[in-house]
Amino acid sequence: MLGGEIMEKLDRQQVMKDPIYGYIHVDLVVIKKAIDTSIFQRLRRVRQLSGVQMVFHGAEHSRFSHSLGAYEIAYRFLTIPDLKNALSEREQALFLGAALLHDLGHGAYSHAFEDIFHTNHEHIGARLILEHAELRKVLDQVDNTFAEDVSGIIRKNGKFPIIEALTSSQLDVDRLDYLERDAYFTGAAYGHIDLDRLMRVMHVKNGKIVFRQSGVHAIENYLISRYHMYWQVYYHPVSRAYEIVLEKIYLRLKDLCINDYRFEGDIEPLKAMIKNPNDLENYIKIDDFYMNGLIASFLNTDDDILRKLSDDFMNRNIWQYIDDDASTKEEIAEIKQQFSQLEQKYFTADRKIANLTYSEDDLANQIHILLPDGTISTLQAESRIVRGLILTGIRTDQKFFYRREK
Amino acid sequence: MLGGEIMEKLDRQQVMKDPIYGYIHVDLVVIKKAIDTSIFQRLRRVRQLSGVQMVFHGAEHSRFSHSLGAYEIAYRFLTIPDLKNALSEREQALFLGAALLHDLGHGAYSHAFEDIFHTNHEHIGARLILEHAELRKVLDQVDNTFAEDVSGIIRKNGKFPIIEALTSSQLDVDRLDYLERDAYFTGAAYGHIDLDRLMRVMHVKNGKIVFRQSGVHAIENYLISRYHMYWQVYYHPVSRAYEIVLEKIYLRLKDLCINDYRFEGDIEPLKAMIKNPNDLENYIKIDDFYMNGLIASFLNTDDDILRKLSDDFMNRNIWQYIDDDASTKEEIAEIKQQFSQLEQKYFTADRKIANLTYSEDDLANQIHILLPDGTISTLQAESRIVRGLILTGIRTDQKFFYRREK
Amino acid sequence: MLGGEIMEKLDRQQVMKDPIYGYIHVDLVVIKKAIDTSIFQRLRRVRQLSGVQMVFHGAEHSRFSHSLGAYEIAYRFLTIPDLKNALSEREQALFLGAALLHDLGHGAYSHAFEDIFHTNHEHIGARLILEHAELRKVLDQVDNTFAEDVSGIIRKNGKFPIIEALTSSQLDVDRLDYLERDAYFTGAAYGHIDLDRLMRVMHVKNGKIVFRQSGVHAIENYLISRYHMYWQVYYHPVSRAYEIVLEKIYLRLKDLCINDYRFEGDIEPLKAMIKNPNDLENYIKIDDFYMNGLIASFLNTDDDILRKLSDDFMNRNIWQYIDDDASTKEEIAEIKQQFSQLEQKYFTADRKIANLTYSEDDLANQIHILLPDGTISTLQAESRIVRGLILTGIRTDQKFFYRREK
Amino acid sequence: MLGGEIMEKLDRQQVMKDPIYGYIHVDLVVIKKAIDTSIFQRLRRVRQLSGVQMVFHGAEHSRFSHSLGAYEIAYRFLTIPDLKNALSEREQALFLGAALLHDLGHGAYSHAFEDIFHTNHEHIGARLILEHAELRKVLDQVDNTFAEDVSGIIRKNGKFPIIEALTSSQLDVDRLDYLERDAYFTGAAYGHIDLDRLMRVMHVKNGKIVFRQSGVHAIENYLISRYHMYWQVYYHPVSRAYEIVLEKIYLRLKDLCINDYRFEGDIEPLKAMIKNPNDLENYIKIDDFYMNGLIASFLNTDDDILRKLSDDFMNRNIWQYIDDDASTKEEIAEIKQQFSQLEQKYFTADRKIANLTYSEDDLANQIHILLPDGTISTLQAESRIVRGLILTGIRTDQKFFYRREK
Repeated sequence: MLGGEIMEKLDRQQVMKDPIYGYIHVDLVVIKKAIDTSIFQRLRRVRQLSGVQMVFHGAEHSRFSHSLGAYEIAYRFLTIPDLKNALSEREQALFLGAALLHDLGHGAYSHAFEDIFHTNHEHIGARLILEHAELRKVLDQVDNTFAEDVSGIIRKNGKFPIIEALTSSQLDVDRLDYLERDAYFTGAAYGHIDLDRLMRVMHVKNGKIVFRQSGVHAIENYLISRYHMYWQVYYHPVSRAYEIVLEKIYLRLKDLCINDYRFEGDIEPLKAMIKNPNDLENYIKIDDFYMNGLIASFLNTDDDILRKLSDDFMNRNIWQYIDDDASTKEEIAEIKQQFSQLEQKYFTADRKIANLTYSEDDLANQIHILLPDGTISTLQAESRIVRGLILTGIRTDQKFFYRREK
Repeated sequence: MLGGEIMEKLDRQQVMKDPIYGYIHVDLVVIKKAIDTSIFQRLRRVRQLSGVQMVFHGAEHSRFSHSLGAYEIAYRFLTIPDLKNALSEREQALFLGAALLHDLGHGAYSHAFEDIFHTNHEHIGARLILEHAELRKVLDQVDNTFAEDVSGIIRKNGKFPIIEALTSSQLDVDRLDYLERDAYFTGAAYGHIDLDRLMRVMHVKNGKIVFRQSGVHAIENYLISRYHMYWQVYYHPVSRAYEIVLEKIYLRLKDLCINDYRFEGDIEPLKAMIKNPNDLENYIKIDDFYMNGLIASFLNTDDDILRKLSDDFMNRNIWQYIDDDASTKEEIAEIKQQFSQLEQKYFTADRKIANLTYSEDDLANQIHILLPDGTISTLQAESRIVRGLILTGIRTDQKFFYRREK
Repeated sequence: MLGGEIMEKLDRQQVMKDPIYGYIHVDLVVIKKAIDTSIFQRLRRVRQLSGVQMVFHGAEHSRFSHSLGAYEIAYRFLTIPDLKNALSEREQALFLGAALLHDLGHGAYSHAFEDIFHTNHEHIGARLILEHAELRKVLDQVDNTFAEDVSGIIRKNGKFPIIEALTSSQLDVDRLDYLERDAYFTGAAYGHIDLDRLMRVMHVKNGKIVFRQSGVHAIENYLISRYHMYWQVYYHPVSRAYEIVLEKIYLRLKDLCINDYRFEGDIEPLKAMIKNPNDLENYIKIDDFYMNGLIASFLNTDDDILRKLSDDFMNRNIWQYIDDDASTKEEIAEIKQQFSQLEQKYFTADRKIANLTYSEDDLANQIHILLPDGTISTLQAESRIVRGLILTGIRTDQKFFYRREK
Repeated sequence: MLGGEIMEKLDRQQVMKDPIYGYIHVDLVVIKKAIDTSIFQRLRRVRQLSGVQMVFHGAEHSRFSHSLGAYEIAYRFLTIPDLKNALSEREQALFLGAALLHDLGHGAYSHAFEDIFHTNHEHIGARLILEHAELRKVLDQVDNTFAEDVSGIIRKNGKFPIIEALTSSQLDVDRLDYLERDAYFTGAAYGHIDLDRLMRVMHVKNGKIVFRQSGVHAIENYLISRYHMYWQVYYHPVSRAYEIVLEKIYLRLKDLCINDYRFEGDIEPLKAMIKNPNDLENYIKIDDFYMNGLIASFLNTDDDILRKLSDDFMNRNIWQYIDDDASTKEEIAEIKQQFSQLEQKYFTADRKIANLTYSEDDLANQIHILLPDGTISTLQAESRIVRGLILTGIRTDQKFFYRREK
């Protein structure tokens, strides 16, 4: 053992109480230590859902909880005989580590942030695993390529295809946790997934994750749950309206930064991002605590636009919206007229959502079905519900959002 | 109708999805508008449990959710025939309003805050109901004494004894919601309460809330749940350790303010509180967004003590603790020796918890039992479990907490 | 009021604890008395699912529980403003009565029984409502056409179209209860229905039950749940195999009766049914208690076939089965060869199942969607999931079942 | 290996869907085969709760389900490190077998039956394990003392003290399953037990089952749940009234048998029991199917008393009851006067219930608490709730029950 304590175990299993799974179970020293790093604890300060909580008040949970949840599903997956056999002890730890750290790169209101600052939370997460000194030290205790391998899985470099498939695909530990967790915290009736059943029918065949045919209904149920969670929860127009306020705040902040506006709060980390979106040290400061405190400091700022947007965010002034289709072109044009050119940039937005419940073309992400005779088929060949979903095509929704005074 | 639209109803009932009750139901215009005020929306920025979430990661919910929950229980209570009959339409609205607004005065990490700044969230809440212009305007639309009456219920001025009993007593809408809600979000197995049963046996007799004898077991269950939630969740030593860090941060901030320390972030609201703890305008700025942002800004501050405490808070450096009893006096003295006089003030704490599951002496808060013959008895007379709890006396726990370097 | 006490209420609402809904609520005297009749109590002796419990051991619940459940959903439906307004007080009671009594005509293992004895539980139920003296007396206390009207709703005579639609259609109180209840008792993960949501979007428009567009996802979820419950639970091949044993027992009993076989137990009620399938007095004796006791008495009977079938039933000797399709014709023929002509009649069966998740052709049973502009659309027009299900057509499953010796 | 295939495993783990635990897991061939025996399948025909279902209509589950549940808890217990280490592979199988078969000796309405026929279901169960040929053959495949050892555990012969303690004590797999299961099926809010927590704190020390101090609250919760289940569910007076009807039916049947009454149905198995309560062959015929069918056959019998009792049973004619205490002596005497001497024997009963929630005197059954310093304490020393329960003594309830005509 050159690199150190390979797969060192805790003297006694540690658990954390979790409302979804009962307990999160930790056996490995490396996982325990990774959880305790400041960079992972930082995820307590990044909420899982941003705009959604404005509609579903229960959805106040963080990416910390979700990351532990994704890890716990990976932990349970490792009781599946085929999977346990297919992965070496080190690969099992890689899987656990990748599940735990898959969202490490998320910051405050990432989706809005990424649109404006052109960052990518997956790339950043993969870099943090390599470059965050405290975490790196923990991972290096396994061996000196462990961090690189975990990071590679997040980046999907193809070195560990099974682990990559389980960490990020059409059916992975990430989605399995967030659908269930978001359903639990929102109170939505739809996100429940039969995890036990999925695990009982999961196998490894020819280096691929496959599901026995008798589990097709559990997969169908998962896809329908996902469909409903997306359209009822994640794409809720009020939630989208709120996300747009955040995006516009970022946009205005960026523009003001460039113009050397004198801000009330500590704007340095954001300024740093404009100069260099790869500045990790500043990036990780931009968590919800930071952004929320910053926006609060703008409630009396001089800039009209920033002040109004900050007030919208703080005091839940939800923007209006109407469908953008042939019948509303005129109405939208009229609404726009009510805004000045400058206001149009910051106070209006036109956004289209398109969602495919199951993609048959995305070959890399296919869900594979193991037939009783040992051959491998596709999900759409075995499920009439999935065929039905494919037949009905992509569902889209385009809306025009605009600010209104309270 | 001088004052305006008494008990004006919404055109259509509005609902908010809630993970505990399915829906929060709103019928009255005044409730809808009160929820929409910025001072109520502010509760989204104040978490329900502070230290607890460091042990139970799911417990990230806000006082906003809990306030809606307490309101919903009040709403359901109003389907109890006796209660509906005992309260006029206006009193019913008062009950709903008081339930909704009972926690309005909470700020960031209130318990720690109150210890240092000598504020009282109930008094502040009662004042906000009267003095917050936006909210006051909403309440005045009912009539010009409505705000005063809601505020009076929070202050327990005795004018509406039934509503006061239902809002704050040994068995009230506040406790009924928070036990259930905190159990749901922590994942604790203990907080479940048989609300339907309690409601079915609740009556009003001689101007008092009473419970039929056949519901004694449901009350017993509630008290045992409360007992377990307190000792397993709220009093968890790690949670208490974390609360102490917050208290010490407040203490250091106060001391530094007095000494005119140059802070990184916007310290004005806290400074204002030192001068005048009754300064509502500044008080309401001190929510979690503000405090969390502020503490984040201290990670590189010059003051050693503030920097270390801020780091403890941000990066979950949990303090150590040992029982403080006859056998540990010496050990505690030794630990103290390791700290300078100044450090002892900020880096150590000795705290005692004492909890009585059911108090027979607190006459005002007695739970009354209605016997089949129509007479009213006490809970302890009718429940051997409650008698047992009383017989075994007060449970206490004293611990010494101290900082350790990571 | 000629007939007596129209809609007389109980002095105090009575409740029965129910594992699904918490409580079954009874306000009306007529409902309370109907539940207490011997003919309704008889449903305690008829299980809801026959073969299914051989696969899902938890599914041991009776039609009594289900009937109370369907009633409770009707009771809750009557809190929907539109529905309450659309129905007179008497019609509301008719709805409650029809929901409660809709399964009154079920006997032991009805599906197998009906195939052999050519009875129809709905016709029998409708007749029992009119002809069972004890029950009739209860219903007559409302008025002298109440029994006739309840019976007419069960027979779907078209007099109360809204009540008929709510009692028996593609989305009715019967299905809503049994899917949820069967899921609860089997432990299946699929049957959960968002009843609250369905109720919130249900309206009456132009004399029809319609659902607001915003509830389409809840209907989709219900249809998918139904689809999965059918294919995973109700159509489970082991369950079907067990139903066939029951059918063959009935067949053999009938044949032996005709040949004047000397039975051990009391065969009279069955003999009576052969002579006259309309003999209600004997029909209602044939509950599970009777049939199970009777079959137990055949474990040592002389007739080989009856004895073997009874043993299969009592001791869970599950028959074998294979798919019946082009590829298995030969294999099936070979299996048949192993049985004598007589045995083929009693020890083999070929059964085909065909199920349409949602029928667009069945105009009477359409689910109607109310658009925001007030016009009424169809479910398939508004739901891509339903369109997908229709596009993929009828799902069938044909199997050949045969006895094997233990 | 003389005896055969020690602890032979199934090729693939088999599972049965269970509403409480998700799945019942079977790994061992001997367990699989034991479940398939006719004597175990017979438990499908014996309901878990007899009178209780007359109050809680959902409680229609059988001893088959409960036996599988108790087995599953044992299965899960075997993942507890201490327990796994303390038991050899064969002992683990003994534990599983004893958990599965612990209720094998139950017959129709056992409690009533035992009172009249002086049988004992535990003795009978222990004998069936040895003497039932089909089952014995299965158990002998492990080795030729396996059956004897399982039987000895049921009889508590002291050979395997840990397994005995886990199978039958104050906290065992039997109680853990039935409290949870009966709560689930009745819908009672009280029976929930934190099984995961109990398992996490369970250890084996000095050959005893002990629980870490940090689990005391979970044990308290279990005892309070048990207390509430007993008084709210099992001791419900309507349920007790119904049990008395059954007891009186057995009593009358016995008396009539002795007098050579000509019965309608097949009375032979009962007659055999009068002659010889040890006649296993006849005993096992007396399941619910048999008894229910038999009682149904008495609805038109000539004997007045038997006919009336049978009608009470079939058509839910619940007997009246009043408290039997100092104040009601006279009233009870008057009620008795309304019955003839003969009727008093069959139509009245005086019954007292006494229940101790936790017995400190029952040394063999103590729950042991493992203190942090490694010493073993008692539950009452560590739990103030348990001390409270002990202090308040035995709770009793005495009632006089009597028949009334409908």
